[in-house]
Amino acid sequence: LCFEVRYTDLAARIGILETPHGNIETPSFIPVVHPVKQSVSTQFLKSLGFKAVITNAYIALQYLGNKAKTKGIHDVIDYDGVIMTDSGGYQVLEYGSIEVEPREIAQFEIDIGSDICVPLDKPTGFGLSYAKSEDFVNRTLENAKATLEIVAENKKARNIGTNKNKENCVGGAIWAGPIQGSEHFDLLEHSVQTLDKMGFELMAIGSPVELMESYNFSLLCQMIAKVKRLIPAKPIHLFGAGHPLTIPLAVALGCDTFDSASYMLYARDNRYMYGTGTARLEDLSYFSCPCPICSIYTVKELLDMDQNKRTIEIAKHNLYVLKAEVLAVKQAIKDGRLWEYVMLKARAHPKLMEAVELFSGFEFLEKSTPIFKDKAIFLYSPIDQFRPEVKRFRKIISSFRSKKKILLLHPDTGLHPFYSTKEFTNIVKKFNNAQICAYNPFLGVIPAEVSDIYPAAHNLIAQSSNIFFGHQAKDYPSFIESLNGFIAKNNFEEIIVLANNFMRDVFAFDPVLNKMINIKILDHESDISFRLRT
Amino acid sequence: LCFEVRYTDLAARIGILETPHGNIETPSFIPVVHPVKQSVSTQFLKSLGFKAVITNAYIALQYLGNKAKTKGIHDVIDYDGVIMTDSGGYQVLEYGSIEVEPREIAQFEIDIGSDICVPLDKPTGFGLSYAKSEDFVNRTLENAKATLEIVAENKKARNIGTNKNKENCVGGAIWAGPIQGSEHFDLLEHSVQTLDKMGFELMAIGSPVELMESYNFSLLCQMIAKVKRLIPAKPIHLFGAGHPLTIPLAVALGCDTFDSASYMLYARDNRYMYGTGTARLEDLSYFSCPCPICSIYTVKELLDMDQNKRTIEIAKHNLYVLKAEVLAVKQAIKDGRLWEYVMLKARAHPKLMEAVELFSGFEFLEKSTPIFKDKAIFLYSPIDQFRPEVKRFRKIISSFRSKKKILLLHPDTGLHPFYSTKEFTNIVKKFNNAQICAYNPFLGVIPAEVSDIYPAAHNLIAQSSNIFFGHQAKDYPSFIESLNGFIAKNNFEEIIVLANNFMRDVFAFDPVLNKMINIKILDHESDISFRLRT
Repeated sequence: LCFEVRYTDLAARIGILETPHGNIETPSFIPVVHPVKQSVSTQFLKSLGFKAVITNAYIALQYLGNKAKTKGIHDVIDYDGVIMTDSGGYQVLEYGSIEVEPREIAQFEIDIGSDICVPLDKPTGFGLSYAKSEDFVNRTLENAKATLEIVAENKKARNIGTNKNKENCVGGAIWAGPIQGSEHFDLLEHSVQTLDKMGFELMAIGSPVELMESYNFSLLCQMIAKVKRLIPAKPIHLFGAGHPLTIPLAVALGCDTFDSASYMLYARDNRYMYGTGTARLEDLSYFSCPCPICSIYTVKELLDMDQNKRTIEIAKHNLYVLKAEVLAVKQAIKDGRLWEYVMLKARAHPKLMEAVELFSGFEFLEKSTPIFKDKAIFLYSPIDQFRPEVKRFRKIISSFRSKKKILLLHPDTGLHPFYSTKEFTNIVKKFNNAQICAYNPFLGVIPAEVSDIYPAAHNLIAQSSNIFFGHQAKDYPSFIESLNGFIAKNNFEEIIVLANNFMRDVFAFDPVLNKMINIKILDHESDISFRLRT
Repeated sequence: LCFEVRYTDLAARIGILETPHGNIETPSFIPVVHPVKQSVSTQFLKSLGFKAVITNAYIALQYLGNKAKTKGIHDVIDYDGVIMTDSGGYQVLEYGSIEVEPREIAQFEIDIGSDICVPLDKPTGFGLSYAKSEDFVNRTLENAKATLEIVAENKKARNIGTNKNKENCVGGAIWAGPIQGSEHFDLLEHSVQTLDKMGFELMAIGSPVELMESYNFSLLCQMIAKVKRLIPAKPIHLFGAGHPLTIPLAVALGCDTFDSASYMLYARDNRYMYGTGTARLEDLSYFSCPCPICSIYTVKELLDMDQNKRTIEIAKHNLYVLKAEVLAVKQAIKDGRLWEYVMLKARAHPKLMEAVELFSGFEFLEKSTPIFKDKAIFLYSPIDQFRPEVKRFRKIISSFRSKKKILLLHPDTGLHPFYSTKEFTNIVKKFNNAQICAYNPFLGVIPAEVSDIYPAAHNLIAQSSNIFFGHQAKDYPSFIESLNGFIAKNNFEEIIVLANNFMRDVFAFDPVLNKMINIKILDHESDISFRLRT
């Protein structure tokens, strides 16, 4: 499989995925298209820049049978871009059992010329018993195995190489390994590892629709994180993610492509998408969207319209919103601001806020976050102490060793780097023997000599004018750890702290720091007297 | 003056302002139009739904002189909507002194048929000495007085009634009282009060451009709040506010109209607006905006374009963004979600976050926030305990009196109202003599009998699964006040607390609660044993 990663931030990546019908730049939203009853034309989707669509092989088989094989799926849906086909497994979840065998649907997907194919899976959905989920996972794995056999037979018959080479990329379809298991994490793990070993080159996380419909974003995050940790390199597809709130979350955690019919399903229900949610058309007074649809209609005009026409117009608007959302996420990846983007969005819904808090414990986000970024990072609230760049900085400092006998701690300055400030110059004159460090609640201790490394000199912190909203020791365990570690790992005989409110709170709060004896705590705010005194 | 307020939220309002050339629905962004060198046509502005524009009378006078009087300003700029004219005072700030007298420019504004006129002011800008500011304020007030004399003379000559009646509204222009004083708040107050007494029916806050350019949003907030408290009813215009980050802030604090040339100035500088900031075109890889401009060009195409054409296209895009921003704010007012909207935006920049924290102390926001809203409010973090609906609820409860001898406190339930829950039913069986109350960190104590009043039964709180991010006593002084007040003002002989983590922290943290003797604190998490025990 040819998947070239170009930019990363958190676990997100901008990449190029090669398929028989051209390349897709990921992250990419793949709209669901009905193989025979599609009301928003594939040409419209193409004009919006959607370079891939997904359609349902099972439905195509039911409606068209052999005709689909003769015409090919690209002709059937009138679309010359990348076509992904789902197998019908999801239909089981929605409508009960379906009458098709895994080998049959796999052969059909091959015959109609699909670019990205999914074996017949048995989605576990959400809330299924462990035993039932286990059964579904195993049946999905059996189907996957049977499917790969069909694929191998076809490759052999068509004389296409089965090894991973360029031709494979161009000539054959990409098969997606259908991950099931949902909230049963050991089943999820088993599912991922088995599919990975089978050789699926793209992996697809199934069954999250119910989670998203119930706004259980936390569990969704944990599921994606679980999968991503197991397969950090392979491209990951997420089924059924077509909401402006789930897209940034899914991408940040490592999903590369995702599909949904939401634009149409929501539209049928008069549901209008916007950046931070959805609303019923009848509840809107204004279109706060600048898309071409919203630019020509008023809410009333759309409400007065014939229902079919209205549905199509809302669906088009929804597609504009989804397109914009993906592009905003991509721009945030390139800007190295995806963390900020996700945290801002989190205030759109309490359940989303709960979910993003989990990012604080997702160590895997650090690996793919660039070491250096062009832009300063913005730091607002306790969650930001767990931003990968900030964690990484504290880690670097934890191995910093000083030979000095005196440690002098000074509040971080507004100007950066610290060593180039007037404050530093003043201190160094008085304490030329001291290890001088700046400190702030997020980065912890910042030795002056390395105060220019990223992001020590590249951050902007929201400072509160209100004591109540100021940074409090209790909220910054990482700071206390950083400070204690720095003191413990060096051999200072004396510590002088120019303390601001935050630092005074730290010393009052932490029992270890509280009991240290060789510490002199001075008021930073009255440091004129400090200068006189020393 | 006819200004009809239809909806309010925080200090924001949706209103209808009547002018000689039709009504404007406020809040309304009024784009700056150059009287002779306008490159984005007024017809385009009109097509976007901008029902008012502002142009510069001083520049019109310089370029066109008497010709402008003969043609009328509507013909000059080819716009049949509402035209506001600035007087040239701002040009002094930008280019030094100008050669025009207040009476002359006032007469000119009348003669050209402006709908909303501004007397010649002397902007104090930002950072001016007190003495100089005082001088500028006084000279502006003198000019304002001279202007009103001219207006009166004209009305008399034209036989238009000078009393506030319907005809006045239709027949004559609206004159805006030019508020100066900036960061010198007593001067600002003097300015507002004098203009108010002079009879200006619309008030215009001058000089914030430098504040906004330096992202000093906190001072901007304080300035607007100062003015709004003094004149809560009159419509308020804010000069120079044309940034997606300042618009929600200004509207939330009570500004009804605001003008800016930013769409064009930014465009000349290749600066592209988006919902949470601006970016240089050359720094963008994607257009994450669905507007008609961004829908037809790629970034590269726009960069390769002839500069003049590019400037116009970016300006148009910027106008789409500003239009969308205002509409989003209006929709948030109607939805009663302006607080949420402002707080979400605040994460776009640390300086904005610092500014919105001031909202916690702005008592005047409560008066115009509806008593009841259709939608549940979302509560995320400590700032939200100061949300007007939440403050108001705690105020109501502070006068609640119980005759019961036992107080039982139970964590608030996910389902609402509390009295309809299984938890409540269980408790009431065991404690039919107790005053049963729910509690949560935001609303404080919620007596079961009133647990259906807004927003006790209409809120969704972000719950943390992570102990570290959970609500902490220290962050909720209003909760401690509510609980202490409730206990102090009633005569309970025994208090039983089913404590969750937050409540345990509250009792450990607050010295008063800590020392109470007639309190029994039980674990809520193990309340099965509680049921057995009691």
